[in-house]
Amino acid sequence: MSFGIDPVKHLGFGTYVKPTRRISESHQPSAIQILDVSPQLDCARFPPKRIQGEELTVSADILKPGHELLAVNLAWRMRGGDENWNRQAMEFVFNEDRWTATVLLDQLGFFEFFIEAWNDRYSKKIQEIDRWLKSGEDVSADVIDLIELARAAIESAPSSARDLIIDRLNGLPDGTSSISSHEAEQIAKRLSEESFSSLIIANLDKKEYSQSGVFTVIVDRPVARYSAWYEMFHRSQGTVENKSATFKDCEKRLEDVKRMGFDIVYLPPVHPIGHTNRRGPNNTKSESKEDPGSLWAIGDESGGHNTLHQDLGTFEDFAALVSKAKDLGMEVALDLAFQVSPDHPYVREHPQWFFYRKDGTIRFAENPPKRYYDIYPLNFENDDWKSLWEELRRVVEFWIDHGVRIFRVDNPHTKPVPFWEWLTSTIRLEHPEVIFLSEAFTRPKPMKLLAKAGFDQSYTYFTWKNTKYELTEFIREFLLSEISEYYRPNLFTNTPDILSEYLQTGGRPAFKIREALAATLSASYGIYNGFELCENKPKSKGSEEYLNSEKYQYKVWDWDREGNIKNYISKINKIRKENPALHQNSNLKLLDCYGDQIIFYGKWSRDLGNVILVAVNLDPFSVHETTVTVPIQELHLTGSYVVRDLITERNFVWNGERNYIRLDPNVEPAHVLRLEK
Amino acid sequence: MSFGIDPVKHLGFGTYVKPTRRISESHQPSAIQILDVSPQLDCARFPPKRIQGEELTVSADILKPGHELLAVNLAWRMRGGDENWNRQAMEFVFNEDRWTATVLLDQLGFFEFFIEAWNDRYSKKIQEIDRWLKSGEDVSADVIDLIELARAAIESAPSSARDLIIDRLNGLPDGTSSISSHEAEQIAKRLSEESFSSLIIANLDKKEYSQSGVFTVIVDRPVARYSAWYEMFHRSQGTVENKSATFKDCEKRLEDVKRMGFDIVYLPPVHPIGHTNRRGPNNTKSESKEDPGSLWAIGDESGGHNTLHQDLGTFEDFAALVSKAKDLGMEVALDLAFQVSPDHPYVREHPQWFFYRKDGTIRFAENPPKRYYDIYPLNFENDDWKSLWEELRRVVEFWIDHGVRIFRVDNPHTKPVPFWEWLTSTIRLEHPEVIFLSEAFTRPKPMKLLAKAGFDQSYTYFTWKNTKYELTEFIREFLLSEISEYYRPNLFTNTPDILSEYLQTGGRPAFKIREALAATLSASYGIYNGFELCENKPKSKGSEEYLNSEKYQYKVWDWDREGNIKNYISKINKIRKENPALHQNSNLKLLDCYGDQIIFYGKWSRDLGNVILVAVNLDPFSVHETTVTVPIQELHLTGSYVVRDLITERNFVWNGERNYIRLDPNVEPAHVLRLEK
Repeated sequence: MSFGIDPVKHLGFGTYVKPTRRISESHQPSAIQILDVSPQLDCARFPPKRIQGEELTVSADILKPGHELLAVNLAWRMRGGDENWNRQAMEFVFNEDRWTATVLLDQLGFFEFFIEAWNDRYSKKIQEIDRWLKSGEDVSADVIDLIELARAAIESAPSSARDLIIDRLNGLPDGTSSISSHEAEQIAKRLSEESFSSLIIANLDKKEYSQSGVFTVIVDRPVARYSAWYEMFHRSQGTVENKSATFKDCEKRLEDVKRMGFDIVYLPPVHPIGHTNRRGPNNTKSESKEDPGSLWAIGDESGGHNTLHQDLGTFEDFAALVSKAKDLGMEVALDLAFQVSPDHPYVREHPQWFFYRKDGTIRFAENPPKRYYDIYPLNFENDDWKSLWEELRRVVEFWIDHGVRIFRVDNPHTKPVPFWEWLTSTIRLEHPEVIFLSEAFTRPKPMKLLAKAGFDQSYTYFTWKNTKYELTEFIREFLLSEISEYYRPNLFTNTPDILSEYLQTGGRPAFKIREALAATLSASYGIYNGFELCENKPKSKGSEEYLNSEKYQYKVWDWDREGNIKNYISKINKIRKENPALHQNSNLKLLDCYGDQIIFYGKWSRDLGNVILVAVNLDPFSVHETTVTVPIQELHLTGSYVVRDLITERNFVWNGERNYIRLDPNVEPAHVLRLEK
Repeated sequence: MSFGIDPVKHLGFGTYVKPTRRISESHQPSAIQILDVSPQLDCARFPPKRIQGEELTVSADILKPGHELLAVNLAWRMRGGDENWNRQAMEFVFNEDRWTATVLLDQLGFFEFFIEAWNDRYSKKIQEIDRWLKSGEDVSADVIDLIELARAAIESAPSSARDLIIDRLNGLPDGTSSISSHEAEQIAKRLSEESFSSLIIANLDKKEYSQSGVFTVIVDRPVARYSAWYEMFHRSQGTVENKSATFKDCEKRLEDVKRMGFDIVYLPPVHPIGHTNRRGPNNTKSESKEDPGSLWAIGDESGGHNTLHQDLGTFEDFAALVSKAKDLGMEVALDLAFQVSPDHPYVREHPQWFFYRKDGTIRFAENPPKRYYDIYPLNFENDDWKSLWEELRRVVEFWIDHGVRIFRVDNPHTKPVPFWEWLTSTIRLEHPEVIFLSEAFTRPKPMKLLAKAGFDQSYTYFTWKNTKYELTEFIREFLLSEISEYYRPNLFTNTPDILSEYLQTGGRPAFKIREALAATLSASYGIYNGFELCENKPKSKGSEEYLNSEKYQYKVWDWDREGNIKNYISKINKIRKENPALHQNSNLKLLDCYGDQIIFYGKWSRDLGNVILVAVNLDPFSVHETTVTVPIQELHLTGSYVVRDLITERNFVWNGERNYIRLDPNVEPAHVLRLEK
């Protein structure tokens, strides 16, 4: 069987290549040690993430005992691009034995780098000559050495540099000559000029040479980090009851979504739905042929993951939707749910891809004591795993061919990490603009592992974190510190599966609170349609399911119904767009304020050109006031200063570190304050 | 040339072996991820250090997406010992995806371990049966599965377990049988008993299996961490002026050193001294044939590193010294100074081992603008490096054969790290009781690198850290936190090269202060003879050299001269011996106290059985008082409690967190307080 892209070879395992130390019976291991290379994750097992257009600073401890000097290069290239490595000299951080270099990440994909270091005998010789001169000693022998070091560089220099070196050395004495001390001093001066010496150093005979392993950094599009998602339940976007809406209906809604300020319109699965054990309203067993069934029970006789549900429209309609979104500056994202209904073509064509029960029937999805009778899970570890993996990759490529560049992945934590590592990396190699969002709700470490393995964005526990204590713990675990090296949280306020108790009970203020938090805590967030309408009726008390959820039945919404917060969302998204401090997460700072009801935090650009301070009253029922602590030292503030609430467009004159605020959830539960200059 | 122990193979490079993931065209990479293994240093590039008799706790994140269960083993052995791996099951830390196991380190040398994990389908099946039973479903098919899993384990089980399993499964139904639900439940119960199920789990068909790389931990003798050193300048231990003392004179002094409470008597080089460019008194060029020269200008026509200086005595005398020390419970340590005088036999026999000048002469040690005319450095990177490295290893083995097990290594930072890594690891493999002390005074990172590369103890900047600010910074960098994983500071109060300004000017109180600090801050410390006599005259103002240093001339001391602090040292060393909290460094805590003159810190055993609090007045001239902050919560103290000053043997009743102290340097500059029960 042909296996175009080898999952083993492209898994990314073994990225942490041991240095080429040129060890052999006849070569001594290099005394130059390259340690603590940054950035990297888990001993370079996984790649950190960056954004196109950013600068990347690489640093390392490079140690060579004794008094010798080193020269160090950063070598880098894009994986799959030019085979040659670009090189630039790294700089020494005085007295700390650390070297750094900064490069612009101007291409999408896998940025690869290594560090090479060698003994800089040329600079050492110049340093010695200088010291001997200062103590009045004759340096002519040392200068002859210096000339010879330079001369030896001619051979290894690239042709462009060669002539320059030859020219400069022309007429200088060789090893057999003798020169006066004065002459030697003059020559040393000329050969020490930086433009010349850097040429020699780069082309020195690298007798003592050491090389780090190869490290990798993912370079993503800016939207991988900064994005506002709108989950659009396509079949509910119409106006006719008891009937599926279409892509054309979705298209009509795009202007509305755009007005609210979203960047990404995410559609749940668009495929045929199985009829075996189809689910009915409120997740009952369907009793009616009219029930549309769950979108996640994918596939029927007409096709599977590469087929459109006939009620939604044609590929032309889909293309028109994608195109209209693009015209509006938005993107369409699709759901990747790698599971099938019992009627999916895979069941007939690839029975080896499934799990079996003793009686020879295929096993339903189950997690005792529950069984999901409308879904078969795929066995990713079956003996014919390669054909399954490759088929799923073809599904992704199919939708890429249809203009989709963003995928929300359903339940990735129930499939093997090596599969995701292979899928995302092989797709990224050919389509570096593609973005994957992980919908894993499980323990923290597996969620983080999926992000490390290649997902560009990840769902979180945000919906369940509502008190100040819960939010603070959550922020510490998923937003602060080094996690932004690889984990980009997407704070969805709600999902088709999660209507939190807080939203069920907190009324319209609760929705505004959650919108403000999601949109300012994280550079990426999302809402699932209905949130803007403050839809909050649960299936039953204690349930997080929506009553009469559109997951199991047709639904028609009034998208402008009374009490909606669409203007509020528009305003929040506009604030996000206009304030670059809100486009990243690594700058988030939790700030102090008294009490358990108001949370206070900030984000600011490194040059302090854009400083945002956010205070949110977490209690949707009552007015609360507090004193917040502004980090005036870090913000270089003295005396009084003006902060502007970008929601109410009111200015406040604040003074010093501690300032009073009062937030009424029935007026505005949150301040999003910009420091005015 | 024969090269008994290959320096390349034994360098320890590549310890961080990539997991045997069984990757091949036909095998899927394991979905089980083993991450963040502890303990390890620099991605397992270097081994952490432990002490024989301690327990080692190994832990790791082990992740397998989905709902499956895992079984995990720690596998371990001593390098160079039995080729087979010992195995013990690791335990799951609830909800954190972390697994741990603890083993006793009962053997010296390199402890090696790896982690292996596999899919525990047996426990998973038991869990499922339990859940189906609870929801009242029939489990007979699942129990048949369970029996078959157990049956499949018979083949891979060791013979001892095989019979037990066969016996237990005897008479149970097979895949073709049908059993009643009640019968199934009974069988499930019996097959779930832990003693039986653990046998099955260990011998399951490991279809999904993952293995970490191999990690290494150095296991040292207790004295590698806890030791008091006395540097004895052998040729000054006698009573006759202008004449070298002998090993017999040294032997006579051992009782005195023992009374002071030292564990290790360290002798500077004991070899013949070169006559070429011999140094005279106070490091002048020698003008007299009577000048003894520097001990570090090693070698003359009579021999080099394997030869004794004839003035010191015979190998029998040396053996008697070593033996007498042993009888007193002490050990003799030797100096390893890998450099030679121009008269050393190596110069004639191995001219290829040296650096050369243009004129064909061998280069002296130099560091512009200084040259050291009595010493040739060795070129560790010469083309014949293997013969040099092997010869130096033979030097170490020579002294091991003569009963030495502890070596203080002169200037290791001027030699390649791979040399030390090879030397210490190959010696450790054959003689795991040998201990190396690194005398590297250079930047922090190279000093730490040498410790990581295999040195058991290391010198520090302690002599230059005298103010509270300096000491605090120093403690943070060299004593607190993770550094004790690999760096064991030996706080020498003085050396033949360093008489600090503090000691020069602070009088007798300064010596007591430095003794108390060195001996209680670090589990290992040392003094260079003369310190106990408060010898403090510098060669000149601003110099750290001793006046008329015994490095360059004969010297006779009155070892009981007035003003000595030998009783004080005895008392401090006795306190050290009697208080196990002072035998380690990882337990050091810097504690709060007001002001810049008194420093306060503590060490306590984990069970709080031994709690030591130390307050030292750092000002040798004036009385100071302060309020110290006792960590009463951590020490489980409430109300009042008694602390006993082990120096003055006085008790104090303290109360609560803050307590007053007053320290007069002319009486006792330090409290070493033990919490009384």
